[in-house]
Order: sequence, then structure tokens, then C-alpha cells
Amino acid sequence: MTRAQLTEKILDIKRERNWTWKYICGEIGGVSDTLIVGALLGQMKLVKPLAAKAATLFGLTEVEERMLNEVPYRGTAMPPTDPLIYRFYEMVMVNGPAWKALIEEEFGDGIMSAIDFDFHFERMAHEKGDRVKIEMTGKFLPYKYYGAEQGIPAYGFKEE
Amino acid sequence: MTRAQLTEKILDIKRERNWTWKYICGEIGGVSDTLIVGALLGQMKLVKPLAAKAATLFGLTEVEERMLNEVPYRGTAMPPTDPLIYRFYEMVMVNGPAWKALIEEEFGDGIMSAIDFDFHFERMAHEKGDRVKIEMTGKFLPYKYYGAEQGIPAYGFKEE
Amino acid sequence: MTRAQLTEKILDIKRERNWTWKYICGEIGGVSDTLIVGALLGQMKLVKPLAAKAATLFGLTEVEERMLNEVPYRGTAMPPTDPLIYRFYEMVMVNGPAWKALIEEEFGDGIMSAIDFDFHFERMAHEKGDRVKIEMTGKFLPYKYYGAEQGIPAYGFKEE
Amino acid sequence: MTRAQLTEKILDIKRERNWTWKYICGEIGGVSDTLIVGALLGQMKLVKPLAAKAATLFGLTEVEERMLNEVPYRGTAMPPTDPLIYRFYEMVMVNGPAWKALIEEEFGDGIMSAIDFDFHFERMAHEKGDRVKIEMTGKFLPYKYYGAEQGIPAYGFKEE
Amino acid sequence: MTRAQLTEKILDIKRERNWTWKYICGEIGGVSDTLIVGALLGQMKLVKPLAAKAATLFGLTEVEERMLNEVPYRGTAMPPTDPLIYRFYEMVMVNGPAWKALIEEEFGDGIMSAIDFDFHFERMAHEKGDRVKIEMTGKFLPYKYYGAEQGIPAYGFKEE
Amino acid sequence: MTRAQLTEKILDIKRERNWTWKYICGEIGGVSDTLIVGALLGQMKLVKPLAAKAATLFGLTEVEERMLNEVPYRGTAMPPTDPLIYRFYEMVMVNGPAWKALIEEEFGDGIMSAIDFDFHFERMAHEKGDRVKIEMTGKFLPYKYYGAEQGIPAYGFKEE
Amino acid sequence: MTRAQLTEKILDIKRERNWTWKYICGEIGGVSDTLIVGALLGQMKLVKPLAAKAATLFGLTEVEERMLNEVPYRGTAMPPTDPLIYRFYEMVMVNGPAWKALIEEEFGDGIMSAIDFDFHFERMAHEKGDRVKIEMTGKFLPYKYYGAEQGIPAYGFKEE
Amino acid sequence: MTRAQLTEKILDIKRERNWTWKYICGEIGGVSDTLIVGALLGQMKLVKPLAAKAATLFGLTEVEERMLNEVPYRGTAMPPTDPLIYRFYEMVMVNGPAWKALIEEEFGDGIMSAIDFDFHFERMAHEKGDRVKIEMTGKFLPYKYYGAEQGIPAYGFKEE
Amino acid sequence: MTRAQLTEKILDIKRERNWTWKYICGEIGGVSDTLIVGALLGQMKLVKPLAAKAATLFGLTEVEERMLNEVPYRGTAMPPTDPLIYRFYEMVMVNGPAWKALIEEEFGDGIMSAIDFDFHFERMAHEKGDRVKIEMTGKFLPYKYYGAEQGIPAYGFKEE
Amino acid sequence: MTRAQLTEKILDIKRERNWTWKYICGEIGGVSDTLIVGALLGQMKLVKPLAAKAATLFGLTEVEERMLNEVPYRGTAMPPTDPLIYRFYEMVMVNGPAWKALIEEEFGDGIMSAIDFDFHFERMAHEKGDRVKIEMTGKFLPYKYYGAEQGIPAYGFKEE
Repeated sequence: MTRAQLTEKILDIKRERNWTWKYICGEIGGVSDTLIVGALLGQMKLVKPLAAKAATLFGLTEVEERMLNEVPYRGTAMPPTDPLIYRFYEMVMVNGPAWKALIEEEFGDGIMSAIDFDFHFERMAHEKGDRVKIEMTGKFLPYKYYGAEQGIPAYGFKEE
Repeated sequence: MTRAQLTEKILDIKRERNWTWKYICGEIGGVSDTLIVGALLGQMKLVKPLAAKAATLFGLTEVEERMLNEVPYRGTAMPPTDPLIYRFYEMVMVNGPAWKALIEEEFGDGIMSAIDFDFHFERMAHEKGDRVKIEMTGKFLPYKYYGAEQGIPAYGFKEE
Repeated sequence: MTRAQLTEKILDIKRERNWTWKYICGEIGGVSDTLIVGALLGQMKLVKPLAAKAATLFGLTEVEERMLNEVPYRGTAMPPTDPLIYRFYEMVMVNGPAWKALIEEEFGDGIMSAIDFDFHFERMAHEKGDRVKIEMTGKFLPYKYYGAEQGIPAYGFKEE
Repeated sequence: MTRAQLTEKILDIKRERNWTWKYICGEIGGVSDTLIVGALLGQMKLVKPLAAKAATLFGLTEVEERMLNEVPYRGTAMPPTDPLIYRFYEMVMVNGPAWKALIEEEFGDGIMSAIDFDFHFERMAHEKGDRVKIEMTGKFLPYKYYGAEQGIPAYGFKEE
Repeated sequence: MTRAQLTEKILDIKRERNWTWKYICGEIGGVSDTLIVGALLGQMKLVKPLAAKAATLFGLTEVEERMLNEVPYRGTAMPPTDPLIYRFYEMVMVNGPAWKALIEEEFGDGIMSAIDFDFHFERMAHEKGDRVKIEMTGKFLPYKYYGAEQGIPAYGFKEE
Repeated sequence: MTRAQLTEKILDIKRERNWTWKYICGEIGGVSDTLIVGALLGQMKLVKPLAAKAATLFGLTEVEERMLNEVPYRGTAMPPTDPLIYRFYEMVMVNGPAWKALIEEEFGDGIMSAIDFDFHFERMAHEKGDRVKIEMTGKFLPYKYYGAEQGIPAYGFKEE
Repeated sequence: MTRAQLTEKILDIKRERNWTWKYICGEIGGVSDTLIVGALLGQMKLVKPLAAKAATLFGLTEVEERMLNEVPYRGTAMPPTDPLIYRFYEMVMVNGPAWKALIEEEFGDGIMSAIDFDFHFERMAHEKGDRVKIEMTGKFLPYKYYGAEQGIPAYGFKEE
Repeated sequence: MTRAQLTEKILDIKRERNWTWKYICGEIGGVSDTLIVGALLGQMKLVKPLAAKAATLFGLTEVEERMLNEVPYRGTAMPPTDPLIYRFYEMVMVNGPAWKALIEEEFGDGIMSAIDFDFHFERMAHEKGDRVKIEMTGKFLPYKYYGAEQGIPAYGFKEE
Repeated sequence: MTRAQLTEKILDIKRERNWTWKYICGEIGGVSDTLIVGALLGQMKLVKPLAAKAATLFGLTEVEERMLNEVPYRGTAMPPTDPLIYRFYEMVMVNGPAWKALIEEEFGDGIMSAIDFDFHFERMAHEKGDRVKIEMTGKFLPYKYYGAEQGIPAYGFKEE
Repeated sequence: MTRAQLTEKILDIKRERNWTWKYICGEIGGVSDTLIVGALLGQMKLVKPLAAKAATLFGLTEVEERMLNEVPYRGTAMPPTDPLIYRFYEMVMVNGPAWKALIEEEFGDGIMSAIDFDFHFERMAHEKGDRVKIEMTGKFLPYKYYGAEQGIPAYGFKEE
């Protein structure tokens, strides 16, 4: 069994029972919707108690439940051909250089983590057409400047 | 003169005068920092009054000022090799399918605009290491279902 | 079940019953032919009443009907190897820069939407060989210039 | 001298004199704006009388005028990274299969020419935001079914 | 059923019955061998009377016969890895610029059609090793220079 | 000096003196036009007597003359973006499998040489639009089946 | 049946019977081991008498035997990810320009054939670690310089 | 001035003065050699005191010194064509799946940071040929499982 | 049977019996964990005694045991989309040039072998978050400078 | 100065003085021609005494002489577009799997080194056209199977 086969099975059940993601996330709960849906689509792992809930909800076997608890081989084909996902890709492509300049000026040399980050979106009513509102925070991880004697950071946080 | 040459000139001046982006954005003002920095890096256009301010600040010629007011050929090489920008790319690659599922369930068939969107980031102090906080809102644009008689939308917003 | 399997099934039925797309679109109706055919080929969703009609026409199961109502992961392999589709790709590749220059001069900074657009083609008789006539309109979406205070557009439509 | 250098020179002059494309096309005239702008951007050739007009307008040398009359090596980098051009690319990528199905059913096996086609766009006022209206016609070119004796088409137009 | 499955079935039958392409083309006839073999390999359509002959010859079902009459999604993976096909690709890659220069000087701006062309090859005995002799003719399609008033060609064939 | 610089110089001179390729090939002569133009565009070498003629015609230095006599690093960017060259590429992509099947059946396992081949094109008048007529012959090179004792061909030409 | 399926079957039998390639090549014989193994892996054809021996050895059906006698669609995915094969690829990538310079100086303009070549490798004992010794000879194929009158070589072998 | 130009200048000086990297790193000191060399090659930033030392050593201008203190756009072309670097790439390509399995089993879901890591190599004498010994440590960053209430991690470190 | 099918079977059994890699490696033993896991994932071969142990542990057939003892076609898709593996890839991409400079200065012209290398990782407790500690040694292989008389190294180890 | 600029200078001098590679290699001597030509084309380093000879021969500056002694960033663009180099690439692509099978059966798991190898070619007269004869030997490097206790090879050479 591959993870893709498990995802297909889960989507078949969701379609058959006419469930929404909102309903599914409500039943499993505990972590953000993005994470639950990501796990069911094969991009995230579910921690054990949630994998158990998901297994009960979808009537999965014990082996399938364990697979949901495994870390998958993450990532999808790029560039994205789907317009909804492409728009996010385009934001990064067009605005990446400016984000880099501004974040590095504020935080120093480093990155915003794509691992330790949270993501939340909600609907924002707007007279000219509703908007998708996204909030995310990611831990800033500074490049470390280790010393000539290995393992000895020579400078503290946000060196210039 | 190409836009890349103008960007190089602007960065040379910034470096020579030891200016920060914060200072530059404060001097030009009027729109978000992301947009100003994006324009100076060759990815956005500056509207005329701001192009004029930028020209005064950097001592640009009239022709260079006009170039800042032109819409550039946008976009940068992908996949990004720079780690800071790659992390955003990775977020899209890993989380794209989940975002698509959740946004479409909430809004119907469509996209979050990468054109009519605003972006804001700030530092969020945190005991385990400061975080980058990002907020953005983008207009949701529903796929239109035009009728068999051309130009006649057969269904309203958020059809099922 | 994947969307590709559903498409293959639909094409098998169409072939077996010797139906034309014109006949199929006439039976389902309500929206443009491009949209109906696109949905049956797995690139668009059909709104519920039309998915129901399609299900009746093709004798689909309830689950298959629901799948037709889902938003698919859009997009096809590029560059197109099929000559008919490549010619459209070539038009964009060769004429893209000119279209960009002219549209931006007329409308300001922004794009013509690929989401809110309608498309219509018809046969145009011509003595030297008939022509394909295509008409499409797409909403112009201006790049928004949000203000330094986030979310406050600093300039109106078609700023210079 | 390369064509790219000539394009850069022309854009420098346009910027210096603060001309619009509309003004330039009005001065050169005779063919569609898309073709004139395409030629000045290095994707099309200008026929001799128009190349002469362009040379007078921009004060080009005789050699540069001849270069405008040469057929360039056409085409630009794909996929387009610029959002305006990408939207056209996306239309082809998402709708290509449906266009293919419908055009082939109407016209038989063949293509819509990207060589013998005309293109026109105009602004369409609309209360919810103006629209870009595009009309194009392209000659349909049927695949020829040449006979076993070479050069003898065995079937006429739109064979089944 | 996909076209690839039909091709595999046809090749299985050909192998089983130990037929040559020459025999098959002789049985189906009417158009050039390249076209018949191309159709059986999934790159061309067979017009109805020929599809019927092919169906009889291979003992295909009615549905399979109809599929042979459909226009396939043309094109194969590029660059070709097979040496025989690569040599043709290399000819285009190395000689393309010269062909372009010479054809455009003779015919004006345009292309040699890959749609309306015929192709014929034969064995040419030669003392130092036999040669493949290829003859093809393709219709020259001039770029049209449509006028400022849309749809009005401003210049005739082979403008300069 | 690079070969590309020499090509640019040659094209500048050709443009300045308003020469056609036909005139140039007539002056240099001795081999086919495709080969002469290919060499001047940097894809072929000119044998010494012809390089001398070309040098006299274009007023090249002795070192430039020697460069024309060098074998260049052949090949151009693929896939070709120029429509004229792309049409040849498409012929190979669509018809390659059929050509392979037919040539191998006629000649056995091997290739048609892209090195030992000649190429000729001419205008073919036609009432429905003139055609480009291409003739080429290429030596057939059979795959050799060397024996277990190295260097000893175990089978002759066209083994089965 | 595809060639890949036949290869998989042959490898299954080889594994089951615990045969070495040496044993297999000894049983089939007649041509070099590289060619026999290449054919069984789907990259070469076996001439009829050898296909018959292979069929007897592996217990293949008559149809499978015929498939071994067919010319396959050659070539594998590049760049090679397997380290053993990559090393050969790297030799070409790093040393290609030097090989080209030296071979062309010795032989004139042309190539070393990849079709008419033989290949042999053996173990070379060496105190610092055994070595793989490879010997190959390939026919040199000179670029032909056909004359202005088509088909008439204007210059002989190794023109300068 | 671009970063690549600064790197070229630094390498020119290094070559002219016949310096080794060891000497240069000794003069600049403070952080690991990898970081100093990386910065001089344009992949890292030097903190201010070290940029000052480097500027003195190489006789750089004040503006060039500031550029060394800027975070560059990191990353180089992939896959690496240079054999030394390719071997590291190959290690990742071949062993990546095993490393992933073992690290995730030991640490839970997350990554080893490429930002907060140190790297050290030394020569290891060995009778059969000296070896390169590499030691690196990277901070393990666990995927965070934020709660349904945004920003609230629902599970601690190394959830199962 | 393909190697991928064997890997899938092994992972199914591991999941079913709820085994860890640590347990599996402990049972098979003899070589490093990286190698055992790599072999079970299809990237390495297991020597015969270990393949036998693995077969006993997983209850494999004799044929499957032999397949574990075969050298697989190594390598995985690049660039890696999985974040854990990507971080190693990024280290190579960003630090490759510095590693090359430093290793070559220390060892002379050559590479660190990706074939004769060992790899070891362990958990390193750290107050600010545990770290992955990696140690590897690879044999340095100097480029050999063979003499004009073939096979005669003209210079010893570490020539300058 | 970049290595590419040095290569261009060397080729200019070679052309000006009308030297052959044979003459140049004779003057520099000491190592194989492939290595000397490779170094002058920017793919290899010359050891100091040979770099000195090359500098004298070409009249290079001391700094250029040092550059010849540096290890370059090796590798060229792939796939090769030049036909001569492509033929070698094709040999690897088509025959790679067979070479892998045969070498691994003979030597065990490992590679033939692309670093410690020598290469020699010569002209082989042949009545049907002269042949290029290539001989190369490369050290076989076995994959090492290090033990669970790190750094302890658990098995000797050519384990099974």
C-alpha cells in the first residue's frame, strides 16, 4: 500500500458520505485544519491520538491508521499547474526578493522557518468581494556563525 | 538601459550612503514597504508621485524616474535557490493541496488573487526565539460560469 | 477513483454511443460548451444541477456525480505537444510582450483575469478557407497599491 | 548589433520622449498595433514602408531600419513569469483540451493557424470593473491526408 | 480505454500474425504509409473508410474502430532518446537557423506548414551504402499583416 | 573572439551592404547554400578555399578566416521558439515513431545519418499557395552486431 | 505486451534460476555480451537466430521471441542517477570538449559513430586495485560537403 | 557592482598575491573557514568586524566592504557539474531516503537545520589513501502541530 | 517483480508488525544502519548473509532474497521535494563552492569518494534543542595525471 | 579574470599562430594530450611545471599561469548539442544498463572511477573508412560496507 492509495481511499469515503472538510476536521480536531487536511492528502503525519480518531471516522484498518502516523515523503509537482495554488507560487516569485530584503534588515541573516510555523486563514467579508485573510507566524532562524574552533559560536544573535 | 541596470545603480547608491530599506521606505512612503522595495528591485512599478520622490532621493535622471513608473517584466528564477525565499516556496509546495481544499470549500471554485492582495509582516517577540508574523488578504475571485448564450453568467456567486 | 478514471469512463461512453460534444452540451446546457467539455475532461467543475444532468445522461453513479461537482486539480502538461494546442501557446509566446505593453498602457498595471473570463468561438466562413473566430472578455484586475498603513489603498484605480 | 540591442535603443528613445505606444502606432500605422509593437519589441518584422516610417520617427540609422525589416528569431522564455502574460498561458493550459475537442468536432482534424491570424483587443466598460475584450480569427488548416501515390490528397476537406 | 492501450493491442496482433507494416499499409491503403502507421501508433486519425478497413484487418470492436477515427492528443517525449529519431532532431537543431534564413529570403516571412505537408521516403541504392531518400513538400504560410482596421490585410503576399 | 561575435560581424556587414544570402552563396559557391549559410551563422565549418572566398567577400582578417575554417560547437537551444523552426521540430515529434517503424522495416536496425546527408529545398509553385519542396538523402548506417570475439562482425548487413 | 514487461519477465527468470549474465551470454553467444545483455534489457534487438536461442533458454513464447527481434525504442532517462552509469556521463561532460578538439584535428570534421562501433571491457589486475579496461572502436563519419548542384560532393575526405 | 564582480576581484587578488585560503582564513579568523571562504565566494555574509578585516587584507573600498556584510542571494546552479561537488549531491540523492527514515525515527517529524548547523572537515591519514573527515551538527527542528485555536501548539516535542 | 514492489512489500510488513528501523537493523546487523535501511528502500544491495537474515525476518521468498542481493538502479528524483532531504541538498548547493576550495587546497585536485565512504549520525543533546550529529569519512581520490605514454602516471600524489 | 576569458585568449593565440593541438601538446608534454587540451579549454588543471611551459609557449602573464594551475569548476552544458560529443552521450544512454550489469557481475557493487582513469585514442586505418580507437582504464571502486560499529568494514572486497 502506498500513501497515494490511502489518500484515494479517504477521498472516496469522503465523497461517498458527502462529508465536508469542516466536518472531518471537527471530528478529528486537536490541531489546525490545514494540518489535518494535509495529513489526509498525504503531506503531513497525524500524531497517534488523531490518527486513531481519523481511523475510527473513516473505518480504516489498523495498518492504515499507522500509515497516517508515518511521516510521508512530502512535496508536490512544481510549478503548480492549478490556478489556486499557482497564485501563491506567483506571490513568492514576484515578491520574494522584497521579502528577503525586508526580513533580513529586520532580523539579520537567516530564514523564517517552514517547519515551525502556524498558518490560519479565514473569510473576510468585503463589499467589493470577500477576501481570504491569511495569518502565519514562523520562527526566525538566524544563520549561525560558528567559530574557527568548531562548535563555538563566535557571535551572538543578529550580528551585523 | 535595462531595468536590471537601474536596480544595480539604486543598490550601489543605497550601499554607498549606508541607507536602510526602512529609511528609504520612510522617505518615499505612501504605499507598503513591500511594494516600494519590490519596485526598487525591479518587480513593481511606482506610481508617478512616488517615482518622483524616489528619483529625488536617489538623484535619478528624469528617464530613470520614468522607468520606475513603468510596469516591469515581473518574476524571478524558480525554484528559488536562496534559503529564505525557498522556505516560502516549500510552504506552497507542501501545503498547497490543503489550502486548495479548504479555500474551495469555504469560498467555492476560484482563487485568492495575487494581484489584489496586501501583505504585511512584523516582528513578533517570542521567548523561544522571535517570529516573523505575516498577514495578507487577497480578494477571492470566483470562477465564472458563463451561460451558453455568451457573456451571460448563468449562476451567481458560490454556486455549488 | 481518480478524476482521470472518470474522464476515461465518460469518453468510453461517448464513443460507444457515438455522441458528439454538441449533443452532450445541448443535453446538459446552462453554461458555455467550453465549460461543460472542460468539466467532462477533468479541468472544470460542474455546478450541482448540471452535474445531475450529466450523471443522468451518462448513467453515472451518485459518487461520480459528486466528483463532477468537485473542483479538480487543474492544468495539463506543458509545453503542449499537440499541434492544435501548441498554436495557442505559440501565440502567447510570440505576442505576449506586445499584449502586455498595449494592455498596460490602456488599463494601467494589472492583468486580464483567467478566472473571470468568458470564451466563445464560432466558425467564420471565408473564401480562402474558413476561420476560427474567438471572442473572449476577461475582467481587468489592477494591481492594488496598498498604503503604508496596511489595508489602506493609497491610490485609486489606474494610478500612474 | 543584435535585435535585442535595437529594442533597448527604441525603448530608451520612447522613454526619453515620453511617448505612448498609441502615439507610436498612430505615427507608423498601416497594420495592427499588436504587430507594430511586436516588431519594435523584436518579435515581428516591419514591412519596408513601415520600417521606413519607424526609422524616421525614432531617428534610426539605415542599417537599423533594415534590421526592423528582417524576420527576427521569434519567441520568449517559457513559462512566462510575468503575471499578465502567465494568465494567457494558464488559459491555454487549462482550456486547451476543451478547445481541441470542440474545434476538431466543428472543423475536422487540423489546427487554427498562429501565422495567419488577426488579433484585436479593446476596452469594454463594465460596472463591476472594465473588461479586456479580445477578438481573433485564425485560418483553420486541415491536416491533409495525402495518398499512397505521393502528393495526391486522397480525401477532401473535413473528411471523417 | 486509452489510445495507448489500443496501440499496444494493435502491435500485439501485428506481432502475433507476423505482419509487416508494408502488408498492413497495403491492406488499408488510400493514404500514405506514414499516415497509416502514424495512426496505428496513436499519432494520427484514420478517416472513416480506412478506420473500417483497419478494424476488419485487426478484428477490432466497433468502439475501437471509432477511436481510430478520433484525433489523438499528438506528440511524443522530447528530446527523443532513440538514435534513429534523434538524428532528425539533430538536423533541425543544427540546420534550423540556415533553413530559416534561406526559406524566409525565398518566401518572405512565414513558415512551412507541418499540417499541410506530404512526406515520402524511398530506398536509394548507393555503392558506398544505400541511402534513405526523403521528399516532402509543405505549404508555405505567410505571416499576415492585418491592418489597423481589424481584419483588413494591409499588404498582400510576400510584402517586404 | 568567439564564433558568435564573428557571426554578428558577418550579419552586420550583410545588412550594411544590403546583400542577400543568394548573392553571398553565389560568390562563395562550391557547396550547397545550406552549408554556406550554416557556416556563416556558426553551425558549420567552411573548407579552406571557401573560407578564403568568404574572407575576401566580407573583408575579414586572416584570423577570422581561420575561425570560419574551424569546426564550431554545433547546436542551438531546444525546443525552438521560432515558429518556422518549430514546425520541423513538430514533424519529428509527431511523425518520428512512424518514420522509425517504416525505415527499420525497409533497412533493418540502424539510423539515417545526420552527418552524411545532403539537403536541398526549392520553391514549388502551387495554385493554392506555393509550397516548400525539400529533398534530402542520408546514408543508412546499420547497427553493427559485433561478435563475441571483439571486432568481428558476426552478421552481415540487414540481419534479421 | 510492452518491451518493459518482457524485460521484467526475463529478469524474473534469471533471478529464479540464479543465472549469471556470463552464463546467459555463453548460451546465446554469437555477438558481444554488451549486445546480448542490452537486448535482454530492452535496448537492442537480437537477430533471429539469437532471439530463437534466447527464447529456448528462457522458455519464451513465439510472440515474445519476435519482440526480442524488434528494434526497441532506445534510450534511458538522463542524467543517469545511478553512480556507475553517471561516471561515464561525467567523463563525457568533462572531457567532451577535449575529445572533440583532438578527434577533429586528427580526422577532420565529423563524428565517431555510436551505431557502427564495438565495445569490449575486461578486468585488468592492478596492485593498487583492479581496473576496468575498456576498448572501443567507432567508424569515423566525416561531415559531407555536398556541392551547389545537389548530391555532388564538392570535396573529398578530410577537407580542410 | 554585483556580488559576482566582487568575487572575481577577490579571486584576482588572491591569485596575484599567491595566497592560500588557509592564509586568508588565518588573517580574517573568528568564524569557521567554510564561512569565510563561502562569504568571499559570494554565498555568505561576513559580520562587520570580519568584513573590515577582509577589506584591509584585500584592500577593498568601503563600499565593497559593506557588500561583504550584505546577505547575498544564495545558491548555485544544480545539478552540480563539478565532480567534487557532485559527489556530495549523489550522497544526498542515494542516501536521502535512508537518512530520512532514521532521523525521523530518532527525532520525530522534522528536519535537521541547514541554517543552524556547523561544519568541519579535516584530513584523516589512512594507509590506503587519506580520507576527508567531515563532522557537522545541525539543530533538529520538529514540525510543530499547532492547535485548532491558532498559535496554540497542541502537542509537545516528539509527538507520536 | 520490480525493486519498488519489493520495497512496498517490506514497508507493508514493517507497518503491520509495528517494527522500528532500529529493531530491524538490530536483527540484520553486520553493517551500518544507513546501509541496511538503504537496501530495504531499494538504494543499496545487501551482501548474501545479510540478505538471508532479512529474508528470514520478513518472510521473503528465495527470489526476493536474491533481489535484495542485487545492485539496484540507484538514485531518486531531484531536486528533493521532501523538506528533510532538501536541507541536505541546500547545504551542498550553498556550501559546495567553499568545500571545493578548501578540500582542493588541502588534498590537491580530486574528489571525496561517494562510494568508499562511511556515514554515521547520532543524537546530540543540547539545551537549546537537540542536534543531529553527522560524521562521515570518504576516501580522497586524486585526479590522476597520466603521461603522454599512456598509462604512465607522470606525477605522484598531490602534484601542484 | 575568469577561466573562460583565459580559454578565449589561448584559443585566439592558437588561431593567430596557426598552431595545431598536436604541436601544443608536444611543446608542453609530460601528460596525456587529453589532459593538456582539457586544461587549456578550462576543464583540467595543469601541474606547475606544465603550467610554466604553457605560459612560456603562449606568452601568458604570471597570474594567468597560476590560473592554469588552479582546479577549475568542471563540467559543460548537458545534453550536449554538438553531434561529436552527443554520440558519446548516446553510447552511455543506450548502453549504460548493459555496462552496469556486466561490470557489477564481474567486479561486484561499485563504480569505474571517472577520476582515476586514463584515456587514449588513436586512428585505426580501415578499408571501409578509418576508425577512432579508444582505450581507457579506470580504477574499480567497490562500495564499502562499513560495519555497525562505525568505520569498521564488515566485509572484504567483492562481497556477495
